[in-house]
Amino acid sequence: MSGNRIIFGFHAITSRLKQSPETIKEIYMDAARHDQRARDLMQLTQHQKKPIIGCPAAKLDSLAGCDRHQGVVAVIDAVQRMIDLDDLLDNLTEPARLLILDGVQDPHNLGACLRIADAFSIHAVIAPKDRAAGLNATVHKVSSGAADTVPFIAVTNLSRTLKDLKQRGIWIIGTAGDAQHTLDNFDITEPVAWVFGSEEKGLRRLTRENCDFMVRIPMSGQVESLNISVSVGICLFETHRQRMLRSPS
Amino acid sequence: MSGNRIIFGFHAITSRLKQSPETIKEIYMDAARHDQRARDLMQLTQHQKKPIIGCPAAKLDSLAGCDRHQGVVAVIDAVQRMIDLDDLLDNLTEPARLLILDGVQDPHNLGACLRIADAFSIHAVIAPKDRAAGLNATVHKVSSGAADTVPFIAVTNLSRTLKDLKQRGIWIIGTAGDAQHTLDNFDITEPVAWVFGSEEKGLRRLTRENCDFMVRIPMSGQVESLNISVSVGICLFETHRQRMLRSPS
Repeated sequence: MSGNRIIFGFHAITSRLKQSPETIKEIYMDAARHDQRARDLMQLTQHQKKPIIGCPAAKLDSLAGCDRHQGVVAVIDAVQRMIDLDDLLDNLTEPARLLILDGVQDPHNLGACLRIADAFSIHAVIAPKDRAAGLNATVHKVSSGAADTVPFIAVTNLSRTLKDLKQRGIWIIGTAGDAQHTLDNFDITEPVAWVFGSEEKGLRRLTRENCDFMVRIPMSGQVESLNISVSVGICLFETHRQRMLRSPS
Repeated sequence: MSGNRIIFGFHAITSRLKQSPETIKEIYMDAARHDQRARDLMQLTQHQKKPIIGCPAAKLDSLAGCDRHQGVVAVIDAVQRMIDLDDLLDNLTEPARLLILDGVQDPHNLGACLRIADAFSIHAVIAPKDRAAGLNATVHKVSSGAADTVPFIAVTNLSRTLKDLKQRGIWIIGTAGDAQHTLDNFDITEPVAWVFGSEEKGLRRLTRENCDFMVRIPMSGQVESLNISVSVGICLFETHRQRMLRSPS
């Protein structure tokens, strides 16, 4: 994937400036904004030597194709980014929330999961390099732009990555229908990495062995499971809900 | 759709016995079960003149194709049921939870929503007769059997149905990205009907005017919305969570 793409909003642009500033071509900001958030971003861009172009709000609407840009829009080079997981985790200023997809094959499901990850401020989506969907055109389309905003990291050895995350004090939470804990009774305010298995086979044995806890969504009907994107949506929403409850902003 | 189908579990079979007993052909129960739940079901079947056939658990596993049947399996005539919404609501013994899909066109989305409705014990899914997907083979397949267990009611005049539900003291909760209330701060322990709009256009004006409250899922990323099945999953999970918290069983 290459070419220019548009991203917008403070969260997306700040993340990109920190993780891969070289991919940012231009940043446009509403010339009328002088608040703290705008000043913080300007300071970061000065540090990165990326000038900000002031412009009227109408131009931002036109660039973003909508009015949800919060007054800031960037043109990026959408070439695949190489993101280093350690760098990313070293620079977090809040408890990590990661999404690990262990062998999700369907690009529609990967796209939907990236869209959910964006909505609930997941810091990165991690997947094994082999036996899993990568970022292709379908994923980009289904993700509604989230493939450009959420760091996607393909790892060679997922088992080793899980061990590294544990070393950093991140809890590894696997999901399965037969799990002991239910989502509604589970504290997710600590740093967490949610792990979901493939559509057909669930978690691999080795992945499951690396989980600190197994959690299931409480269900009371006849169906055995929910679609993976629905399950991811529910678990990430509940994480978001518990954290907002703990530290409302 | 016609032919024999299998349903299982106490919730599914009890609902079917109450709503459309004429579609039940045979009921099989684990001969070793003598607990209260089994006795309640036997009483109901005697009342409906539907004999129960005792059998070993292994036969139930074989009929259901899995072991999640709770010791009870029924063979049903899967001809489309005519369910009367008033009858259904008159016979509820707990606060109503309904799902209303106002013009969902994609059978995959309808199937996914039925699957979620089954998982979170929704009493009925309601949709307008026109401009919406009906129960076809794709919906049945995607729903993983939920199309046979969750009552699906197509209504001629959705606006009138919403007014009737309000008359019964059921709160009508619409969903939209610009809503005032957020899901995490909203009490959903009263009788509720969740209303979701079509994939493209959201709620119709008249439907929105009939809502008592508008609620949005709190999101913090760049994407504007989530896929409808993901949104339905999150809202119905949160309803389920709040009710379990209020009356744990």
